[in-house]
Amino acid sequence: MPSPHAFSPIDHSPVPLYAQVKERLLARILDGSYPAHAQLPAESELSSIFGVSRITVRQALSELQRDDIILKVPGKGTFVAPPKAFQELTQLEGFGEAMARRGHRIVNRVISHQTIAAPQKVAHRLGLATHTAVTEIRRVRMLDGAPLSLDVSYLPLVLGERLRGADLAGRDIFLIIENDYGIPLGHADLQIAAALCDEALARQLEVDAGSAVLRIERLTHNAQGQPIDFEYLTFRGDAFQYRLHLARQSRQP
Amino acid sequence: MPSPHAFSPIDHSPVPLYAQVKERLLARILDGSYPAHAQLPAESELSSIFGVSRITVRQALSELQRDDIILKVPGKGTFVAPPKAFQELTQLEGFGEAMARRGHRIVNRVISHQTIAAPQKVAHRLGLATHTAVTEIRRVRMLDGAPLSLDVSYLPLVLGERLRGADLAGRDIFLIIENDYGIPLGHADLQIAAALCDEALARQLEVDAGSAVLRIERLTHNAQGQPIDFEYLTFRGDAFQYRLHLARQSRQP
Repeated sequence: MPSPHAFSPIDHSPVPLYAQVKERLLARILDGSYPAHAQLPAESELSSIFGVSRITVRQALSELQRDDIILKVPGKGTFVAPPKAFQELTQLEGFGEAMARRGHRIVNRVISHQTIAAPQKVAHRLGLATHTAVTEIRRVRMLDGAPLSLDVSYLPLVLGERLRGADLAGRDIFLIIENDYGIPLGHADLQIAAALCDEALARQLEVDAGSAVLRIERLTHNAQGQPIDFEYLTFRGDAFQYRLHLARQSRQP
Repeated sequence: MPSPHAFSPIDHSPVPLYAQVKERLLARILDGSYPAHAQLPAESELSSIFGVSRITVRQALSELQRDDIILKVPGKGTFVAPPKAFQELTQLEGFGEAMARRGHRIVNRVISHQTIAAPQKVAHRLGLATHTAVTEIRRVRMLDGAPLSLDVSYLPLVLGERLRGADLAGRDIFLIIENDYGIPLGHADLQIAAALCDEALARQLEVDAGSAVLRIERLTHNAQGQPIDFEYLTFRGDAFQYRLHLARQSRQP
């Protein structure tokens, strides 16, 4: 760990103290003195290093956290955040395709692949009668060796059974359906929300229970507009974000 | 509160026990016996009402929670979730416009409107030198009387000063800029992530610290492509979701 005395001192410029502390810390993070996952000095220590109040330090850390530069882990300390993986929401795309294009390595841990009686909501979204037999596939998606999301997919039985022979560990379900089965996909409807990680999910994603997660419901249709895949995707909030480009439609004043 | 004995009993059909418990609860929620915000009986009570194990009850509740039908509040109990407000991500649109179109009443509580030296990230996104004076506007957006999000907006000073005379409590900044100032908006870049609510934010959104929030960074450009508004939008995870329609692009196998 670099000597904490290596921070440039606070000066008497008109720049607010918290902003100076923030920039001193940021400079040392950006120059690699504190790499990803490194622990920063405690608040009390930073307060004495910079000769400012703990409130000032807290404000600086709060802004660095808001900018995803650091992570505060309750009871453990403050750490430099690794860059978040992201997926562009411009077209319907499997997670593996999207990540592979940017050089990430994706491996899927298949937890279960079973036939179940469709719960009411799943049946409704897939346009089936409640309790119709459907296939449920649970996968933990590993990004560069670390768990990033839990994907639970529900498919009509005929499609789900066909996937039993497929390489679900190495490939996206979307690509298997399109390229191997010749069923072109059409559109998908997504809902994006934030939620807390319960204990079972926390174990699978290797985070603490009570962590924030992005929770997606995605209903994918074939090119004829029939629903063929309903999924719950749950991403680690500390490691993933969506990105999106939106155009303004011209309107009458 | 309706008598818990009004649930239909569990039967010996091939439907799994947890699914039966889930459907019995859902039926009573959908018929209005348990309206939004009503508390459900405790796990132990449900276990004895239905004559099933607590694990079975927990699995039923877990699925109802996943489907946004109920909310578990640690230390308080299980409550019927009100329907989440949602915004479609199809075009760039102010929150007020989007909500008003569906009959919601939006009021903005303006917390502060001040000139600050732009922090590094804000300056970078707005294409300004660090520490350039910019306007910071903090608003809590109230949906039908309850706080839903904290919006922190950074604007070039000339635009931000002009907004001092505007009705920020009643109108979207987007609409004021376009309709009153005649500056058409172009596109915006968004990042969408999940995070936990810290204490200061929790007070403003009237939720518990440690709740999940959707955290958006949005950079809005004018029609000429110049950045004119950089914002942090933080939505209550229990009360809001984004919705989105994505088309598949045809591709070579």
